[in-house]
Amino acid sequence: MGNTLAYKILENHLVEGSLIPGAEITIKMDQTLTQDSTGTMVYLQLEAMDVDKIKTELSVAYIDHNTLQTGFENADDHAFIKSVAQRHGVLFSKPGNGICHQLHLENYGKPGKTLLGSDSHTPTGGGLGMIAIGAGGLDVAMAMAKGTYSLTVPKVVNVELTGKLRPWVSAKDVILHVLDKLTVKGGVGKIVEYTGEGVKSLSVTDRATITNMGAELGATTSIFPSDENTLKYLTEQGRPQDYVELSADPDAVYDETLKVDLSKLTPLAAKPHSPDNIDTIKNIGSIKVDQVAIGSCTNSSYTDLMKVAAILKGKKIHPDVSLVISPGSSKILSKLAENGALADMINAGARIIENACGPCIGMGQSPKSGAVSLRTFNRNFKGRSGTIDADVYLVSPETAAISAITGVVTDGIESGETLPEIEAVDFNFNDNFIVYPKGTSKDNTPVEMGPNIKPFPRNTALGDTVEATVVLHAGNNITTDDIMPSDSRLLPYRSNIPYLANFCFEKIDSEFSARCKEAGSCAIIGGENYGQGSSREHAALAPLYLGVKFVLVKSFARIHRSNLINSGIMPLVFENPSDYEDFSLGHKLMIEDAKNQVRNATITIKDLTNGKEYTAVTNFSDLEIDMILCGGKINSIK
Amino acid sequence: MGNTLAYKILENHLVEGSLIPGAEITIKMDQTLTQDSTGTMVYLQLEAMDVDKIKTELSVAYIDHNTLQTGFENADDHAFIKSVAQRHGVLFSKPGNGICHQLHLENYGKPGKTLLGSDSHTPTGGGLGMIAIGAGGLDVAMAMAKGTYSLTVPKVVNVELTGKLRPWVSAKDVILHVLDKLTVKGGVGKIVEYTGEGVKSLSVTDRATITNMGAELGATTSIFPSDENTLKYLTEQGRPQDYVELSADPDAVYDETLKVDLSKLTPLAAKPHSPDNIDTIKNIGSIKVDQVAIGSCTNSSYTDLMKVAAILKGKKIHPDVSLVISPGSSKILSKLAENGALADMINAGARIIENACGPCIGMGQSPKSGAVSLRTFNRNFKGRSGTIDADVYLVSPETAAISAITGVVTDGIESGETLPEIEAVDFNFNDNFIVYPKGTSKDNTPVEMGPNIKPFPRNTALGDTVEATVVLHAGNNITTDDIMPSDSRLLPYRSNIPYLANFCFEKIDSEFSARCKEAGSCAIIGGENYGQGSSREHAALAPLYLGVKFVLVKSFARIHRSNLINSGIMPLVFENPSDYEDFSLGHKLMIEDAKNQVRNATITIKDLTNGKEYTAVTNFSDLEIDMILCGGKINSIK
Repeated sequence: MGNTLAYKILENHLVEGSLIPGAEITIKMDQTLTQDSTGTMVYLQLEAMDVDKIKTELSVAYIDHNTLQTGFENADDHAFIKSVAQRHGVLFSKPGNGICHQLHLENYGKPGKTLLGSDSHTPTGGGLGMIAIGAGGLDVAMAMAKGTYSLTVPKVVNVELTGKLRPWVSAKDVILHVLDKLTVKGGVGKIVEYTGEGVKSLSVTDRATITNMGAELGATTSIFPSDENTLKYLTEQGRPQDYVELSADPDAVYDETLKVDLSKLTPLAAKPHSPDNIDTIKNIGSIKVDQVAIGSCTNSSYTDLMKVAAILKGKKIHPDVSLVISPGSSKILSKLAENGALADMINAGARIIENACGPCIGMGQSPKSGAVSLRTFNRNFKGRSGTIDADVYLVSPETAAISAITGVVTDGIESGETLPEIEAVDFNFNDNFIVYPKGTSKDNTPVEMGPNIKPFPRNTALGDTVEATVVLHAGNNITTDDIMPSDSRLLPYRSNIPYLANFCFEKIDSEFSARCKEAGSCAIIGGENYGQGSSREHAALAPLYLGVKFVLVKSFARIHRSNLINSGIMPLVFENPSDYEDFSLGHKLMIEDAKNQVRNATITIKDLTNGKEYTAVTNFSDLEIDMILCGGKINSIK
Repeated sequence: MGNTLAYKILENHLVEGSLIPGAEITIKMDQTLTQDSTGTMVYLQLEAMDVDKIKTELSVAYIDHNTLQTGFENADDHAFIKSVAQRHGVLFSKPGNGICHQLHLENYGKPGKTLLGSDSHTPTGGGLGMIAIGAGGLDVAMAMAKGTYSLTVPKVVNVELTGKLRPWVSAKDVILHVLDKLTVKGGVGKIVEYTGEGVKSLSVTDRATITNMGAELGATTSIFPSDENTLKYLTEQGRPQDYVELSADPDAVYDETLKVDLSKLTPLAAKPHSPDNIDTIKNIGSIKVDQVAIGSCTNSSYTDLMKVAAILKGKKIHPDVSLVISPGSSKILSKLAENGALADMINAGARIIENACGPCIGMGQSPKSGAVSLRTFNRNFKGRSGTIDADVYLVSPETAAISAITGVVTDGIESGETLPEIEAVDFNFNDNFIVYPKGTSKDNTPVEMGPNIKPFPRNTALGDTVEATVVLHAGNNITTDDIMPSDSRLLPYRSNIPYLANFCFEKIDSEFSARCKEAGSCAIIGGENYGQGSSREHAALAPLYLGVKFVLVKSFARIHRSNLINSGIMPLVFENPSDYEDFSLGHKLMIEDAKNQVRNATITIKDLTNGKEYTAVTNFSDLEIDMILCGGKINSIK
C-alpha cells in the first residue's frame, strides 16, 4: 500500500507518535513564519520562554498586516519584532517587502520541508510541496524554541485533477469549486492532497492559490507534488538548488477522493458572506460593481498581476468603480514596474497601494455603504471589509479585472476577449528589505517595547471545581473575526490584550465584555465549526483575559481549538448536539472534580439553573490534558 | 511706477474695489479646486445654495486626503462628492490620481489665471504664475456659485533671487531659508513675489515647491513669473497652448524686499516643531534617523522623485530606517514605472504607498514612539505625524534620500557623491482617473449621502447683547491642527461636525468640548498668529457648533479669520496685547449693543468677573459686518 505525499513528509519529520489518523504526533518543524498582527504575541512568548538561539533551520518575521500605521502602535510593534528577531536569530522582513506567504514562497519555501506559521494561510507553502501549517502564536513560539510541533494526525483527501483550465478560468476557480463541494468545514481534521495529470497544467503560484484557500476548507493543510513546474518556479526565483522531486506513491490510499475536471470549470464567485457560498459568474449576472480589489496572499502573484495588466492595458476603469491593486511582494512590484505592466494598470486608472495584506484584512480600502465589492481575496465574512453592509464577492483576478472595466460582474469567457499568455521571467534575488540577525548565539540587542505592548495574559492551574456563567449562546460558523474583531480600528492593538478584550464578540453582542467582567468566571456555548477563519490566538487570549473557563460547542475549527487549549480554556463538544438548545444566557454551570474528569473521554457538566446534567466530549491528548491542568501551554513548559 | 505681477493679475480680475493694500476687493475667480477632507463641506454648502451650473471656467474636486478608507466613511464621502460634482459641472478626480496641487499644476493650472482652493497649499499654482489662494470651504463654494471671491488687498513682498543652487541644495532649501528670514507669520497679509535672474534656474516644479510652502509664511499667496521654463513645463504636460508670458514691470515697486543668493544656500531643515525652526543639516549633525518620508504636495514632482531614485539606485536603505515614498500623481508614478526609477527605489528597499497626501496629513505612516522622522513635507507641528513624541524634520528630497541610506541626518554635499542631472520627459495626457460632468446645465444625478454625512451647522443672527464665558486661554501660534485635530482617527469624520466637535482643542485641553457644552455661549482667548496652518473651516465650524461667539487674540492667520467670519464668529484683536494676561477660564464677558458696535473700528468688551473693560480691534469690512450680523456667510446670501 503506497504512501500519500503528505504522510511521506510527516514520516520524514516524525519525532514522536505514530502516523495513524487521530493519533497525536510530534514532528520536526524546519521553518516558521510570523506576521506582525499575531507576531508580537509570538515574540513576547518567545522572550518569556527565555530560549537562547532558535532551533528551526529558518524562521522569518514578516511585517505585512499593520502597515497603514495610523498611530505610533504599528511602528512600535515593528520595532519590537525586529529587536526580538535580532536577539534570537530570526530573519526580519521590513514593511514594504510584501505579504508573508508570497515572500516565503518566493524566497524560503522548500519542497519536502515543514513550515509552521502564525497565520491561517500558511498552507500557501503547500504549492511548493511543503507541509505548511497555520497555528496559534504560542505553537509557533514553541516551534522556534524547541524545533518541534505536536498535532493530531489528519486524514488525507485526494483531489484528483484532470484536464486543463480554459482561458478566463483560473486557480481561484478551482479552489472555489472545491469549497463548493466540501464546504468551509469539509477539510477539518484533514490534509487535502492534489494529484492527477491536471496538476501539470498548474504553475506553483496557481497551486499556491489553491493551497492558500484550503484554509477556508478548515483543512490542516493542502499540498501539491513537487515536479518540473516546481523546478521552473525555483529557478525563476534564483534557487534551483532547493528543488527536490516529490509525489505520492502511485498506489497511495486516500481517505476520500474528489475528482475535478479542470476543463469543465467556469468562472465562479463566493457570494456574500461565506467562502463556500459559490455560484457561477454567469448565474450571478451583471450586478453593478462599486469596488474591485486585487491582491492578497491568495492572488497577488506575478502571473496574476500580469494577467490583470493585460486585461487593463489601453482600457479605462469604469467611472463608478474604484479599482485597487496591492501587489504581493517587492520583487513582483519591481518587475511589474520594469516591464511596463504597472504603467498599464495606472494608465487605466487603477489605484496602486502598498504590497501588503491591506484590504483583505480590512486594513484600508473599505468600500462605501452598501457597496458591491469584487475581491480576489480569501474571506468574505460579513463586515470584514470594514463596511458592515457591503456585499463582498470572492473572484479570480481575471474576473475582477474585466469587471472593473465593464462596471458590472462579468464573465470573461462571455466577453469574447482574448487573454494573452504570460511569459515567465527570472527574478533577481533582492534582500534589501531583510534584516539579518547578527551572530549565531543569542544577541544582546535590547528588546524595544513601545507603550502599547502589554504582557500576554496567563491562566492559572485548573481548580477542582469549575463554576462558570453562560455569557454567550452563539450560532454556527462563528469566526475568529466574530470572537476578536480585527478591523483597522483594532488591529493596532494586537499587542494589548487588556484593551482588545473590551471588543471581544463586539459585533455579535456589544455587552459581552461587560457581562464577562461581571460574571468573573464564564462559559461560552456555540454551534458547529466554532472558531473558523484566521489563526489569531487573540480569539483565545481575550476570552482568557475575560475569565472564560470553557467553550462548549457542536464542533471546533482546528487552530482555534488548539489556541483555547494553549490558553488553558477547555474546548468541549456536545455529545448530544441537541443539548445546545437547553442553554441560555446567565445559566450557572459547574464541572465537579474537573482535574480528574479532563482525563476522561467525556466530562459531565451540571446546569445549576435548570438542574440538568450534560455530557461533553473532551478528546484531549495527553499533552492537551497537561496544558489544561497547568492553565495553558506556557505554564506547562515551565 | 511699474506694477507687480501679483497686482497685474488682480487688476485683470477686479470686479469691485480698488487695488490698495488693506482695501477690500472682489475678484473674478477663474478656477476652483477642492480636496475631500474639506470638500464634503464645500459641496454640502454648494448644494444648500441651490445654484444651477457653476460660474467658474473650471472647477475640480480632487480626492487625496482620505484615501486609506479604514471604514465606510471615506468611500461614502468620495461618492457624495462625485455625485454633487456631476450635478453642478465639476470635474471629479478619482482617488489614486494623486495630490490635488500636483495634479492641478500638471493638468489645469494656467499662467495669469486665478484659482481658489479649499486647501491651504493652493498657492502651489503660483509656480505657474497664477494667483492661487487657499480659502475656507464656504468661500470656495461661493466662488463656484458666483464666480467671484472677496479679499483684503495684500502687500507685495519681493524675494529677489540671484545665482544658482549647488547640487544637493534644492527648492526646498530656498523656501526653508525664506521661512528662516520671515518666520511663520512673516507673510500674513502679503503676497510673496519671486523675481531676479535666479528665477531662471528654477523649474516650474521647483517654483511650485517654494510657492506651496509660502503657506507656512502665512502669506495670502506666492507667485513666480511665467517664462520659458513655464512654457517648457506646459509643453511637457502636453498643453503649450496654455502658456502666456508674464512678469512684473521692471520698475515695479514692492512693500518689502528680501534678497537671496541661491549659490550661497546649503541643505537646511526645519527642526521640530515648526516650519520656521530652521538650521543647516551640518549644524544639526548626524542624528540617528528612524523614518524617512518622501512625497506630499511640496516635494513629489517627477524631478524630485527622479533625484531620489538616482540617489537610491544600487544602494540599500539602512536597516533601521523605514523609507516610505508617495508619488505626487498617477502620471508621475506611471512615468517612474516606465523608466525604471520606481524599480530602483523598490530594489533599494523603499516602501511605495498610494499617490496621495498620506503621511503629510498624519494619514498613515506614523513613526514609532520617540522617532526621528525626516520628511519632505511642509508642516512639522507636534503630533501631526500621528506620533505625539516624534521629532519631525522637514528636508529636501535629496537630503531625505541620502539620509535613508546612511541612517543618520546627512548633508549630501559633505557625502561627496555626485547627483545626476534629471532629463526632462514628455507626459502623456491621461484622464482615466477623471469623471467628467455630463451636460452643460444642472444634472439630475441624485446626491449620494452616506450615514456619516451630516448637514453643516448654521449660526443665528447676532443678538443685541453677546454674553460669553471664557472656555480657553490659549498661547501663541495655535494651529488649525490644534483647534480641530485632523489625524487618521478623525479625518474620516470631516463630514460630521457634531461628532468632530467632541475633539475640538483635544490636544490642548481635553475638557474643552464638555466645557463649551456646559457654558452654552463661549469665548476663546488666544495669542499671536491664531489659526495658522491648514485652511480647514472645521476649525471654525466645530467652535460654531459648540457655541463660540467670539475669539479674542493678539493676531490672526488670514484663512482662519475668514472662516470664523464665514461662520458668524467674531474674530477680535486686542488693542492692547498685554490685556491678554488679564483673562482666565470661566470669566464672564459681555459685549453690549453688539449689532452697532461691530460697525465700529473697535469694540468694547466687559469682563463681568473682574469688572474691567477692554478694547478690541474689529477691522471688519462691510461684507464682513454683514456676515457677522446675519450669523455667517451662508445666511448673508439668502
